[in-house]
Amino acid sequence: MTRAKDRSATVSEVGEAEVLEVLRGPAEQHTDDPVGNGDDAAVLGPSAATVVTTDMVVEGTHFRLDLTTWGDIGRRAVAQNVSDVLAMGADCSRVLVAVAVPGETSMEQIARLSEGIHGEAARSGAVVVGGDFTRADLVVVGVTAIGTLPDGARPLRIDGAAPGDRVALTGEPGRSEAGLALILSGRPDGVLQQTYRVPVTPIGSGRAARLAGASALTDVSDGLLRDLAGVARASGVAADLVRRDLPVDPLLAEAAAVLGAPDPGARVLEWVLDGGEDHGLLGTFPPSATIPPGFTVIGRIRAGEPGEVTLDGRPRVPGGWDSARGASAMR
Amino acid sequence: MTRAKDRSATVSEVGEAEVLEVLRGPAEQHTDDPVGNGDDAAVLGPSAATVVTTDMVVEGTHFRLDLTTWGDIGRRAVAQNVSDVLAMGADCSRVLVAVAVPGETSMEQIARLSEGIHGEAARSGAVVVGGDFTRADLVVVGVTAIGTLPDGARPLRIDGAAPGDRVALTGEPGRSEAGLALILSGRPDGVLQQTYRVPVTPIGSGRAARLAGASALTDVSDGLLRDLAGVARASGVAADLVRRDLPVDPLLAEAAAVLGAPDPGARVLEWVLDGGEDHGLLGTFPPSATIPPGFTVIGRIRAGEPGEVTLDGRPRVPGGWDSARGASAMR
Repeated sequence: MTRAKDRSATVSEVGEAEVLEVLRGPAEQHTDDPVGNGDDAAVLGPSAATVVTTDMVVEGTHFRLDLTTWGDIGRRAVAQNVSDVLAMGADCSRVLVAVAVPGETSMEQIARLSEGIHGEAARSGAVVVGGDFTRADLVVVGVTAIGTLPDGARPLRIDGAAPGDRVALTGEPGRSEAGLALILSGRPDGVLQQTYRVPVTPIGSGRAARLAGASALTDVSDGLLRDLAGVARASGVAADLVRRDLPVDPLLAEAAAVLGAPDPGARVLEWVLDGGEDHGLLGTFPPSATIPPGFTVIGRIRAGEPGEVTLDGRPRVPGGWDSARGASAMR
Repeated sequence: MTRAKDRSATVSEVGEAEVLEVLRGPAEQHTDDPVGNGDDAAVLGPSAATVVTTDMVVEGTHFRLDLTTWGDIGRRAVAQNVSDVLAMGADCSRVLVAVAVPGETSMEQIARLSEGIHGEAARSGAVVVGGDFTRADLVVVGVTAIGTLPDGARPLRIDGAAPGDRVALTGEPGRSEAGLALILSGRPDGVLQQTYRVPVTPIGSGRAARLAGASALTDVSDGLLRDLAGVARASGVAADLVRRDLPVDPLLAEAAAVLGAPDPGARVLEWVLDGGEDHGLLGTFPPSATIPPGFTVIGRIRAGEPGEVTLDGRPRVPGGWDSARGASAMR
């Protein structure tokens, strides 16, 4: 088949069946679901509760083909959807992928994309159970991620935070945004840059937060402040952050210096508070809960104006990413 | 809010939260799922088996903004995914929608799109439980449709056809393709044209086929011949169609005449056999099964070259739609 043979052929030349064959990935990844990939729809076995989310990445909006690889596009599309499943307190088990590319895309590029999709799914403990392929004038990858919750398990919504809860976070926010700034300045390689290209989702952390008794959980996709304000607003509470407790990757200060920021400290803080797409998990934990490994306490929930967030006692308005408007800052 | 107030505002002006609010649709449509629309992911209640599929429609590939309406884009995107769930022998219960549009799209257009999405979901007996919104240089609507199968119910795969089975179909194939030809000739209005814009999915027919004991089922998205050949190939059998048994809408002959086809009969047959996107259900039924209402018997399965399809005894090579190459004929 084309997979081994002629990877310089374009999708227009080989036709849908062969493209879908490559996107379907290795056979050993197939599940024991009643119906896996290749039929009109997949059929999943019995479950107590099914968690499902969908999200697409679009050329020109979320990535540029000259600044990323086909493998990374696939990884990123899967990672950010898996992250939303984790943010409900579940593990991700299945992924469906809809791919649109221009007709002149080569089968080599499709193969790389497929490897990225299946590789990231596997890293997340999930398998790809369905897909769709079509042509388009630009590259679009839409992913649906599915997880399950065990019988009686309570999903972690965004509206469960209560006064007295601690606010805690996984990972080091701002890395993705700093990475993008470095890429745009002509420095394509490095740890921060790769975080921008493929966010590292904290597999297992969602379930850990649920088992620890978290009251609310979300993933940081639009920026720490904006997503925390979202949790606070939905929960009818306010949140106070403590600046010295924020986990700050030392690479951020280095990046601010390299980029010649007039006030490097301010730039780093901006990345940490408003940088989107890190996909760390942001949770709130009642006083009785033990904070699970990997989470850092960064503040506290209190009664107050719903959605208000303060830093060291001063109200702070979220910047961050807005999908309709684009970035408030530099994107 | 913007919904009532200023529909001439663009998505760039109003921001993501208001766009998502409009896409979320009427509150009364919300389900009793543990978590509905508005959180990181939706959480669905217990089920014996979950059917899930995803598919996107893309501007320039599946529709042109000057030839369709925003409501019809939404309806079509939902309809063709619901159709894939029906084709497993299930009913569709939930839909997730990812929308990408240019920043200058008006909130009026978003509202029309949302009405189409929610209207078609409601017609199908489903509710919208999740969504995603982003900007893009062209319009993309990705839909994930979900259904459930009752305990012990067997999903209808494409690989279950056996020699002796009857081949049966819902609806009148070729209407969508004829409708497109009329639209492209400058005749935008009419029954066939509307079938092209929004395929009519036969709600309930999938379940009826399952209860009747169908051995295989799919929906006709790529053309009757191509999809039947797919069933035959997956099942390791051949299929014989009988021309006089094919259900042919009289409007097709009228359309062929209006378009000045040199051989109107041949053009009609081409539409019926190779026209895609009608989304009728195509099933195979063992001799013991009673053909359910709405299905017309059009041929028979026999042992033979896997995937071969004949018409009145003569092998016929599928034309129809290939998502990678585009149409074999005129698209």
